[in-house]
Amino acid sequence: MRQLFYPRSLVITGVSSSPANLAKQIVDNLDSAGYAGQIYCVGRRAGTLNQRPIFESLSAIDATPDLAVLLTPAETIPAALEECGRKGVRSVVIETGGFTEFRAERVALEKEILEMATRWGITFMGPNCVGIINTDNGLVMPFYPVEAADMAKGGASFISQSGGLVHDFLKRCSYEKLRCGKLLSIGNKLMLDENDFLEFLITDPVTHSIGIYLESVTDGRRLMELGRLSQKPIVVLKGNRSHASRQIAQFHTAALAGDERVLEAALGQSGLHRVSTLSEMISLLKIFTLPLLKERNLLLITRSGGQAVLLADAAALRGFNLAPLPSTLANFVRQKVKAGVIRPTNPVDLGDVFDIRSYAEMVELSLKDQRIDGVLLFHYFPVEEKELTEALFRETADLSRAYQKPVVVCVLPGRREMLTFDPEPYFPVYEDADQALDALAVSLRHFENMQKRMRTRSLEHVTQKKQQRYSTNEIAPVSEIMPADETFALLKAAGLAAADYAIVSRVDEAQAAADRIGYPVALKIVSPVVLHKTEKAGVKLNLGDAASLEAAFGHMKADRYLVQRMVGGCETIIGAKRDPQFGPVVLFGMGGMLVELFDDVAVRVAPLDEATAAEMVDEIKGSVLLGGYRGSPALDKKAVVDALLCVSRLLFEDPSIINVDVNPLVVLERGKGAVLVDAKIERLVSPAD
Amino acid sequence: MRQLFYPRSLVITGVSSSPANLAKQIVDNLDSAGYAGQIYCVGRRAGTLNQRPIFESLSAIDATPDLAVLLTPAETIPAALEECGRKGVRSVVIETGGFTEFRAERVALEKEILEMATRWGITFMGPNCVGIINTDNGLVMPFYPVEAADMAKGGASFISQSGGLVHDFLKRCSYEKLRCGKLLSIGNKLMLDENDFLEFLITDPVTHSIGIYLESVTDGRRLMELGRLSQKPIVVLKGNRSHASRQIAQFHTAALAGDERVLEAALGQSGLHRVSTLSEMISLLKIFTLPLLKERNLLLITRSGGQAVLLADAAALRGFNLAPLPSTLANFVRQKVKAGVIRPTNPVDLGDVFDIRSYAEMVELSLKDQRIDGVLLFHYFPVEEKELTEALFRETADLSRAYQKPVVVCVLPGRREMLTFDPEPYFPVYEDADQALDALAVSLRHFENMQKRMRTRSLEHVTQKKQQRYSTNEIAPVSEIMPADETFALLKAAGLAAADYAIVSRVDEAQAAADRIGYPVALKIVSPVVLHKTEKAGVKLNLGDAASLEAAFGHMKADRYLVQRMVGGCETIIGAKRDPQFGPVVLFGMGGMLVELFDDVAVRVAPLDEATAAEMVDEIKGSVLLGGYRGSPALDKKAVVDALLCVSRLLFEDPSIINVDVNPLVVLERGKGAVLVDAKIERLVSPAD
Repeated sequence: MRQLFYPRSLVITGVSSSPANLAKQIVDNLDSAGYAGQIYCVGRRAGTLNQRPIFESLSAIDATPDLAVLLTPAETIPAALEECGRKGVRSVVIETGGFTEFRAERVALEKEILEMATRWGITFMGPNCVGIINTDNGLVMPFYPVEAADMAKGGASFISQSGGLVHDFLKRCSYEKLRCGKLLSIGNKLMLDENDFLEFLITDPVTHSIGIYLESVTDGRRLMELGRLSQKPIVVLKGNRSHASRQIAQFHTAALAGDERVLEAALGQSGLHRVSTLSEMISLLKIFTLPLLKERNLLLITRSGGQAVLLADAAALRGFNLAPLPSTLANFVRQKVKAGVIRPTNPVDLGDVFDIRSYAEMVELSLKDQRIDGVLLFHYFPVEEKELTEALFRETADLSRAYQKPVVVCVLPGRREMLTFDPEPYFPVYEDADQALDALAVSLRHFENMQKRMRTRSLEHVTQKKQQRYSTNEIAPVSEIMPADETFALLKAAGLAAADYAIVSRVDEAQAAADRIGYPVALKIVSPVVLHKTEKAGVKLNLGDAASLEAAFGHMKADRYLVQRMVGGCETIIGAKRDPQFGPVVLFGMGGMLVELFDDVAVRVAPLDEATAAEMVDEIKGSVLLGGYRGSPALDKKAVVDALLCVSRLLFEDPSIINVDVNPLVVLERGKGAVLVDAKIERLVSPAD
Repeated sequence: MRQLFYPRSLVITGVSSSPANLAKQIVDNLDSAGYAGQIYCVGRRAGTLNQRPIFESLSAIDATPDLAVLLTPAETIPAALEECGRKGVRSVVIETGGFTEFRAERVALEKEILEMATRWGITFMGPNCVGIINTDNGLVMPFYPVEAADMAKGGASFISQSGGLVHDFLKRCSYEKLRCGKLLSIGNKLMLDENDFLEFLITDPVTHSIGIYLESVTDGRRLMELGRLSQKPIVVLKGNRSHASRQIAQFHTAALAGDERVLEAALGQSGLHRVSTLSEMISLLKIFTLPLLKERNLLLITRSGGQAVLLADAAALRGFNLAPLPSTLANFVRQKVKAGVIRPTNPVDLGDVFDIRSYAEMVELSLKDQRIDGVLLFHYFPVEEKELTEALFRETADLSRAYQKPVVVCVLPGRREMLTFDPEPYFPVYEDADQALDALAVSLRHFENMQKRMRTRSLEHVTQKKQQRYSTNEIAPVSEIMPADETFALLKAAGLAAADYAIVSRVDEAQAAADRIGYPVALKIVSPVVLHKTEKAGVKLNLGDAASLEAAFGHMKADRYLVQRMVGGCETIIGAKRDPQFGPVVLFGMGGMLVELFDDVAVRVAPLDEATAAEMVDEIKGSVLLGGYRGSPALDKKAVVDALLCVSRLLFEDPSIINVDVNPLVVLERGKGAVLVDAKIERLVSPAD
């Protein structure tokens, strides 16, 4: 992997000296970025490019380059890989597009490439990518113009499923003065995927923070595992949200725990920070260049009363506290205020008559105070104060480092200042205080995540083998809904209590069972095909005596019936499914209409530990009903947590189970447990059955 | 009012030639902005400033200026006003601060100023403001430096309760290339408030769109009225949100319909567009420089595949449709694509190898298509294409005007391009596509508002007299909770049906009433002090016979009781209150826990018309329960609408009523109406009582 980022020499194919030649652009980029390694060019027509000979084939070169960048048409790639193999080139970047992203029937070509690479022991990235930009050594592979002026060596790295977004990321960094490290485009990720590169960047000494843009998640479990291992902040932008697969509505869980919600849960559980735009990503990577925010007490400083009001609102909205003004700072402000009509409060309103040379001292007085965890300075300046402002920002950057607290600088430039403003090469400045506060909130979250990780032992996790992209065993799985009696038995065995029931065939058996169980009872058809029982008259509730049971029996035609004790209490739902990216997922919600009307559910990737299960219960709004709502007795929350753990375990112990709906699980008073009243399970059936 | 914006001559007080003098800065600003009127300076020490004499007093000037700008200490202002009065100056801007915004006890001084102004027929703005910036005539009153380079004459005007934000607005406009019109700071709005200026700007021929920053709403009703009258888009930013007054929790409505929610409802009802940051405001004012979006079908064009995915997500998230690609455009794209691996879809992905000179033609092909209502072009460019990009943007601006459809241009500049990029003086460009799409959604909303306004007749409205800031009659009002029997009678008279009830004192009366009404009944204490009846054992429900009624009687000690028929059905809540800014407000929600757990309520400023009341019912998520949820019969939604109208009317007919909670109003099956089961009313009591 390191060879992809630090080759001592490389060869580029598809080169010609024509101005429109894409491979030529790569050579230009490498030259302008000052790549110091040896560059070889290969093209169909011999010639020269930037004083280098263009070889007609790889074999014509009298050395073995560390790396090959391929940019010849899709159908030539297998042969090119073979040539690399014979030559001894083991690291390849396939930039060529036109594979399955363009036409689905090109699967065969992708398979051929994979096989060829495997045969020769070649590691490759792509196809359909722009490769790597490494600011550390001037390695610039995109076939579009990359300006050296935009590349400032630093610690923010970026993994992108889109080559265009690598460009956009770099532009945005240069514009926002964020120094970047390794930027890479993973394309169709036929061999190396986001996780491979993420693993590399987590251990890369140059990289301090990582952004990832994904259109599809290759292996969600591994992504989570890497997230949990990384101390470096990782920010994820997921595209293709509007194309989320529509799940069959047959299972509550499947419908409620849609792709978006599972992704959200998975990222949250593994400490990855999710954003929804590229600007947000850059904003977070900017904040991560500063020391982390360690608690929520801020001091805000601004030159305008209106901004002070807006800042206070924005801080309160995000749950920050406005720290009390240190008396040293209050005195300082009092001395300096000119018109005498500004009160020393937090936010500090400097009015418009204040000496900019004293700002740094004010920031330092704030940082010295233990009750202040971070400072936000909202600044503007007339053109005349440009140099003073630049000096100020250099000082605040030093102070931030010295006190290990974030000092975030926002500036509202006019056109003229902006065109010349350059406080320091690549010192990040915010233009929008709201965005800065959003970023500070994530900085705090990252700090808290790191603290939490130090306290709790690492979660048990399922290590999956790296999936083969095109597996030979591609038989579509067949599934079935388990019969009710088996479902009840399985869940009981898994540790979930069920309301007393019996399976019967005849009315006299039903009455005998009801006598044993105790009236009132419910009568349900045992049938795998009737799914929404209440709506299809497959269920009769509250049968108070033998006569009404018999009458109900008369109206329902089936081979087997379930007679069940009626249980009153608070209805909840527990569900589970297997997500294609993240594997087993568990869901919790209140029963009845709450879950449907208000989407009030909690989702986590399994396995759950007790703390996570309890967190799920507390997360939903409806769970106040479990705590003893309006004077009613408190219910058995612990039993719900246990039930969640049972369902989580069930999915791990039995890989054939793909969907579980326990609906309802009736929660009784504290100490009395929770009993399931109805449940459905979908399981895979082996084709032999 | 016009004289404040277009004075032919003005005098500035508090001037000295000291470099730190604030009034001097105003003179400098006027000079650098090229204000052509006569400028007089008044200061304590005679001298000259910018070749003008400094007069020792207003009376020493041998002319009567149209306008005076006062900037002498607070306590000198009454005398200064008197001097203005004697001299014949009738328009005054009081910029001096240090009034009630600084010390509450300066009310007396503010009163004195008001009286003085009234005595001399003076119209003034302020105090504690920076006055006006009028780009139309170079009138620049702020006492901080305003750079002429930042002022581009245009149609976006701004009313601000903060002087600092006027500065920020101007800077932001210059930065974002938004041309602006009249910017003004209203300060403590002792005489002229936001509504006075809004009324002026609505009729100002130069102003095309209006931004308002408020920290307090002076007269919400008038603001709404003006909003309804204006064809010009008005964008409101409200500060001081975190200081929203906490309402007493005694009334459900008062607690649920908090300041934020009432403001939201009021602005929405009157077609004002609310934002929560200054950047958002500028973003909307930028979009309003383009033709309005008339339907939701967009064509998106970008140079990067990743951006295409993100744009499609962002558009879908906001409810836009991606219009089908016109065949003319598809053919055009096919011809121009170089590598042949880009599919013609919407978003149009131009890859990175495309000729920028053909973009304008692509935009025009899109605009020609009737199925496309707007185009978003997400562009980036290498430095070499700067001139071509500038030309492109000039063309798209022309096309947008010619086809009367918005063409929104987003650009992702690098540092170097940004420093020199200048497509056209003041052509607004977005840097963030998400922000552009948000703005387009508001553009569409504004268009729809205007259409709706053309269809429906203007709402009845309460014209209030302009409130006197310091009224002489400041006796604190006294209120009481009405006794239950009066409450029921009043609501019945207002048109709300109540569940059958009787007021009784003795148990035999109760039993007789229950016989008439029919069992089961509820027994409630008639008492104005027991508010939460269920929790305080002041109510017994479901009494099935005379014996249980008697037993219940035995447990409740009171003088008078209410015996009421038990009614089953769907519980809803109707509430009303008088908001200090917006007057009567009506609230609707479902009963029980839904309203509390999920904040699922609809709020509107009264009076309601039938359509608005129906909209309230449909707005809340819980109202699906009224429509026949899961096979249960549909309920009487019409009766709920009628009840809302009754409550709205009640508040208008009886100004002494300040709070109403109808909780619950039980909704019966369709055609059977809705009956109130319990209600509370708070009313003002005249001090004489």
